[in-house]
Amino acid sequence: MAILERRDTGSIAHLHMNHPEKLNALSDAMLAELASALAALREDRDIRVVILSGEGKAFCAGHDLKEMQAGRQAEDGGAAYFGDLFTRCASVMNAIRTLPQPVIARPHGIATAAGCQLVATCDLAIAAEGTRFGVNGVNIGLFCSTPMVALSRNIPRKQAFEMLTTGEFIDTDRAIDLGLINRAVPEDQLESATMELAETLASKLSSAVRIGKEAFYTQIEMPIEQAYTYTGQVMVENMMLRDTDEGIRAFIEKRRPDWAE
Amino acid sequence: MAILERRDTGSIAHLHMNHPEKLNALSDAMLAELASALAALREDRDIRVVILSGEGKAFCAGHDLKEMQAGRQAEDGGAAYFGDLFTRCASVMNAIRTLPQPVIARPHGIATAAGCQLVATCDLAIAAEGTRFGVNGVNIGLFCSTPMVALSRNIPRKQAFEMLTTGEFIDTDRAIDLGLINRAVPEDQLESATMELAETLASKLSSAVRIGKEAFYTQIEMPIEQAYTYTGQVMVENMMLRDTDEGIRAFIEKRRPDWAE
Amino acid sequence: MAILERRDTGSIAHLHMNHPEKLNALSDAMLAELASALAALREDRDIRVVILSGEGKAFCAGHDLKEMQAGRQAEDGGAAYFGDLFTRCASVMNAIRTLPQPVIARPHGIATAAGCQLVATCDLAIAAEGTRFGVNGVNIGLFCSTPMVALSRNIPRKQAFEMLTTGEFIDTDRAIDLGLINRAVPEDQLESATMELAETLASKLSSAVRIGKEAFYTQIEMPIEQAYTYTGQVMVENMMLRDTDEGIRAFIEKRRPDWAE
Repeated sequence: MAILERRDTGSIAHLHMNHPEKLNALSDAMLAELASALAALREDRDIRVVILSGEGKAFCAGHDLKEMQAGRQAEDGGAAYFGDLFTRCASVMNAIRTLPQPVIARPHGIATAAGCQLVATCDLAIAAEGTRFGVNGVNIGLFCSTPMVALSRNIPRKQAFEMLTTGEFIDTDRAIDLGLINRAVPEDQLESATMELAETLASKLSSAVRIGKEAFYTQIEMPIEQAYTYTGQVMVENMMLRDTDEGIRAFIEKRRPDWAE
Repeated sequence: MAILERRDTGSIAHLHMNHPEKLNALSDAMLAELASALAALREDRDIRVVILSGEGKAFCAGHDLKEMQAGRQAEDGGAAYFGDLFTRCASVMNAIRTLPQPVIARPHGIATAAGCQLVATCDLAIAAEGTRFGVNGVNIGLFCSTPMVALSRNIPRKQAFEMLTTGEFIDTDRAIDLGLINRAVPEDQLESATMELAETLASKLSSAVRIGKEAFYTQIEMPIEQAYTYTGQVMVENMMLRDTDEGIRAFIEKRRPDWAE
Repeated sequence: MAILERRDTGSIAHLHMNHPEKLNALSDAMLAELASALAALREDRDIRVVILSGEGKAFCAGHDLKEMQAGRQAEDGGAAYFGDLFTRCASVMNAIRTLPQPVIARPHGIATAAGCQLVATCDLAIAAEGTRFGVNGVNIGLFCSTPMVALSRNIPRKQAFEMLTTGEFIDTDRAIDLGLINRAVPEDQLESATMELAETLASKLSSAVRIGKEAFYTQIEMPIEQAYTYTGQVMVENMMLRDTDEGIRAFIEKRRPDWAE
């Protein structure tokens, strides 16, 4: 059985982390599977939305600590291995952010350390009520420095700092308030709520969503005037799509668009 | 009747979009009127605060789609026209942000797409309860890439991404929670609440507010140490104003300041 | 009696502003004391957490206005003095942010202008219920341009702009909602709640917390890809600590870590 399963429902791809005995840790193998699956999705024009979920008691409990400790056997004490590991992990996070399709995290149970980073990195997140989120590496002496890159771009500073230095968990109500997730539903409605959101996104003009997602993360790092110059060009590109012409025409004529894609 | 009316009440200027049959769309004509009105306000030393409102069912419903579609008749399919349109639109947004006077948005009914961008761009916003906000261009295949520049600098990322990709509206309670508006009041109190806020701002030392508004948007894009170097100089400039000397002196002497301006 | 007292409780240092007749204003003397105390703490390997509090009715009421006015007697009207004052003030704020140890603000009563800036600048804040926060320099003609550097990096834009231009106070509930403080407790529990948080932080591996705090503020100003490259290296540095090896090992072996530090 693969530790990462992909199942497609129409234009929606489910990436399901299936290594429950390891709480879906981001081991070398899991990172490789995620990198490979994301690379395939990037080229897959049939897929419009991706859902990321996990099997078992936890969505994802972060890095594989036993594997990391084994890395210390190398002559350099593991320095080269760790450097490579964090590069590969960041590469997976960047692949989610730069994936043309929106990615919805579907956390349940526990999302800690790099698992919380996954939630923060995905474009959207619907959690099961009762999910606990934490960046608790500090408890074992390993500050969650890479997870905080994503976390501190999702929630306010003092609240991020508190999570990082106390290692305490927050619940779904708090995660909603802070902006870490979009909403929470009872666990037995998690799949249907996530699918409903995915279907909503999949019903939009896919090329426009792709253009928009790329522009979202690109403009957010620019000074505002540069962001307007850039997104103005993005809007022109979007306007020149045949399907956008049709979409606007249909709206004016009060009918459903007949999109080619 | 002009599609943009300006009425002044003492030192408060009301810019009232008055094209209700077009839901106050940001047509070429409306953008030109806004640009012209803002250019005049910039030089108007008698005006201390600006209120932006709209006539009819909607505050503003975004761009004028029929006019945009007509632009496609050009030889280039409209590309040059669209580029120019988004440049003019961004120029109006930048004119609001860089206007020396604070601008209060007063949305009611509906504020969508570039209309939601207007709300996000204004320095402050008081909405009528029941106002719905959306960046729903995605529904017709035109992702709200320029509105998101302002939106994503007002509200958290996941919530902005959700609005942009689902096209769903949010209500005033949610808009307050997310930070898109300052507050909401019943529609029959909208004018008085907005005027009260405007009068509060108008009662302050205008030269200090001007200095502060410019510094606000300038420093927010700087690394923090540079921001301190810059705002330290701004504070010195502010301290050297004759009226600031008087303001501090009056405070120490527990009397009202006798400001010259 | 010193206007700034330092008392240590184990590895927790209390910096207590003790100039109640001046509402703990950031006078030249207070800034010098703070700079000196922070410089000493920076080198103090026995101290793991710092708490900043104030004596009397207010946590801190901002700059010392009488002293500032006296500065106007200079030939240049005070320009050089003011420039130097804001440089020294920013230097204290930067010293808090770059201090290796986390700093918890413990505001009560009133925290205004540069006093509110102190709260915003500290890594964490627990307030007494009933504390009022404001950046109200605008009321006397001196826009809080330096305080807004810290404030606008803690709370959303429109809410920061409202505070800065209206000069109105917010209460602790609002301060929590906006992200300015972490939480509020009844005044008679303020010391115990702050100590509890400080002890939680002090119980962590100090070297990991130091690495993490520095990385927090460094990465937050970087583009995201650069932030990942940087924090990846930080994680390697953290992994190579002897005590982190022990911390992870202890976690795997389900025992308490035996840390050397």
